[in-house]
Amino acid sequence: MIEVVAIGNEVLSGQTVNSNAAFISKELFQRGYPIIRHTSVADEPQEIEKGLEEALGRARVVIATGGLGPTLDDLTGEVAAKLFNSEIHTDEEVKRDLINRFGDRLTTLEHQSRVPDKAQAIKNRIGTAPGLVFRQGDKLLFLLPGVPLEMKSMLLEDVIPLLEKEISVGRFHKRILHFCLLKESEVDPLLRQLAQEYPEVSFGIYPQFGTLSVSLSSRLEDRLLKPAETLKKAFEKYFYEAESIEEAVHKKLIAQKKTLSLAESCTGGNVSKRLTAISGASLYYQGGLVCYSNLSKFELLGVPQDTLDLHGAVSKETVEAMVVGAMRIFHTDYSLAVTGVAGPDGGSPQKPVGTVFCAIGFKDRPPYIWKLTGAGSREAIIDRASTHLLAEFYLKI
Amino acid sequence: MIEVVAIGNEVLSGQTVNSNAAFISKELFQRGYPIIRHTSVADEPQEIEKGLEEALGRARVVIATGGLGPTLDDLTGEVAAKLFNSEIHTDEEVKRDLINRFGDRLTTLEHQSRVPDKAQAIKNRIGTAPGLVFRQGDKLLFLLPGVPLEMKSMLLEDVIPLLEKEISVGRFHKRILHFCLLKESEVDPLLRQLAQEYPEVSFGIYPQFGTLSVSLSSRLEDRLLKPAETLKKAFEKYFYEAESIEEAVHKKLIAQKKTLSLAESCTGGNVSKRLTAISGASLYYQGGLVCYSNLSKFELLGVPQDTLDLHGAVSKETVEAMVVGAMRIFHTDYSLAVTGVAGPDGGSPQKPVGTVFCAIGFKDRPPYIWKLTGAGSREAIIDRASTHLLAEFYLKI
Repeated sequence: MIEVVAIGNEVLSGQTVNSNAAFISKELFQRGYPIIRHTSVADEPQEIEKGLEEALGRARVVIATGGLGPTLDDLTGEVAAKLFNSEIHTDEEVKRDLINRFGDRLTTLEHQSRVPDKAQAIKNRIGTAPGLVFRQGDKLLFLLPGVPLEMKSMLLEDVIPLLEKEISVGRFHKRILHFCLLKESEVDPLLRQLAQEYPEVSFGIYPQFGTLSVSLSSRLEDRLLKPAETLKKAFEKYFYEAESIEEAVHKKLIAQKKTLSLAESCTGGNVSKRLTAISGASLYYQGGLVCYSNLSKFELLGVPQDTLDLHGAVSKETVEAMVVGAMRIFHTDYSLAVTGVAGPDGGSPQKPVGTVFCAIGFKDRPPYIWKLTGAGSREAIIDRASTHLLAEFYLKI
Repeated sequence: MIEVVAIGNEVLSGQTVNSNAAFISKELFQRGYPIIRHTSVADEPQEIEKGLEEALGRARVVIATGGLGPTLDDLTGEVAAKLFNSEIHTDEEVKRDLINRFGDRLTTLEHQSRVPDKAQAIKNRIGTAPGLVFRQGDKLLFLLPGVPLEMKSMLLEDVIPLLEKEISVGRFHKRILHFCLLKESEVDPLLRQLAQEYPEVSFGIYPQFGTLSVSLSSRLEDRLLKPAETLKKAFEKYFYEAESIEEAVHKKLIAQKKTLSLAESCTGGNVSKRLTAISGASLYYQGGLVCYSNLSKFELLGVPQDTLDLHGAVSKETVEAMVVGAMRIFHTDYSLAVTGVAGPDGGSPQKPVGTVFCAIGFKDRPPYIWKLTGAGSREAIIDRASTHLLAEFYLKI
């Protein structure tokens, strides 16, 4: 029913990851709108025109982003006006709003006040480029700025309320179940069985590093209950109720009123960054130390020089001393520590790239320590170590 | 010339950001292959078929990812076989390779050894699903797994070498210039002028938080030299030669043989994570402290309790004490500190959400301190603060 179109060479050239499409789709999918396609086209008039025209042929609602600004490669408004055979006029209301917010010396004032006759302007609360909405029969074309902050505000405050008012048919119900430290191959047999048993439900399986999501969707809400319960029960131990494993940890620690600290080596602050991306992390998170030199492990965490000399920075003994040190300096209920070889250099036959030691520190019992292995890019090793650390912690507390 | 197709509901529902398309496009664009479109379609046979067929109509080369695994929603191979009117057989070479790597008890052995008669298998060096390449006249269709690690290995080791051997026409030359702390509106007038002066060059401008890239591309390499020089010279102060601002900092510190430490509060480890994502960061980065409680600022960094009481955790005085503390405990040549209100809660009339104080510590002179303001989501505020901190540091050393 809905197609999301990104306009911009920065997406096609890989300069920018198309996170706008992901954001728009997630918000709409959560509300039961099926997304049928994503398309990204270049900043060229004929490409934009072809892209929008084809999308309007396929979808009832098209949401396009990008190309509404004042610079030379911003052509979306003009192309859409041409597509709808529309003249363009200066919209006095948009102009007044821009003057109110940016003053009448704004160099792009005239340009950004121009609105096609056949479109309605959507107010930009943050930047200068107004959004546009065109109608054709029962079809809707939304043009939003490519700047994520401006796009998000228009999507949530204007586009979605309008869709909720106008579109009631064709929406579906969905449920997404998240599991940690569970393998795709462990879930697949049950999913195949459920797909046969519940033909009116669509199933999907999305493995990530260390976590796995299963989605169920159907036009009829009550059809989701039984298969969702079956899945949850079959893998209860691994189930978590949150958007991400860091959010699951976040919620659990707040509920338990416990505090956490971190001592990261190979993950370089990634675990800390993921936890603090969630508002309210300060309720449990006291702080973390990123130890990138042996000196910082030794002096600040109190990892004995002997341990480093004898066993190396990447070892069971070092991660244990790190977690104990973090518990001590941050005075927390729990602590997590991680050290490893993220690569691509630094591996050895005994400790190849991808060797990672993890530890969970507790107040009332000895630390739990384990080892991960497995090749991959530096990014993949850091991501996998971070997710496994959080997932194991979630299951252990 | 090239279209990138992602197959999978996880992309359409926004569960997964389409970073595969960005990776593929970046690698190909850098080598001068024009990317004409990205398309993402659902895991449904008719959607996959339509998506691939349309893409082959538009592009000479189509690179599709996803849907090659062994689970119930992996349908790409079958659909492509149907599209090319091809039977499917068991490929003994693929089977042998799977047995060599995973043993003959692999439950998906038969399934993953099946290859359409009209396709060639591409060896998967990491996982179980082989890639496929189909030919039709001078057109090429590559099917790669959706797992990033497996896709990347096939792209770099198989797809690109094959393209470089077979496709010589239609490639272009390009140059991307990166600037930090420069505004789009400052560059746009010069770009418009250059676009008139050099009609055979295409210009693009990509602003991010705190950095900005300008791309120049042309079929003729020598046409890029003059406009690139003009741009570089006009904004020389802001220019950096690297893929990202963190890489620019990384290179400069290694060249200067200087060391760095961090004290992060509102950015929660994001600056540390960005620097350590680059291999070799341990050559200059000693470590960082993420202070999420006043206790950790006070005890570990030695920020005086008086400073926190009098001026608050988000203040010029606190960031100054943080940077001095980090220099001391990590014994580094430089240190960066940042504290602010990332929101959405915690703002006040005096210090609204988005207020951030940054500091650079030097060995031989007093710290440089500045303030950032500006609304936005938590994620945007963290990102902007991290980039501005790194960019200002890059310009100051």
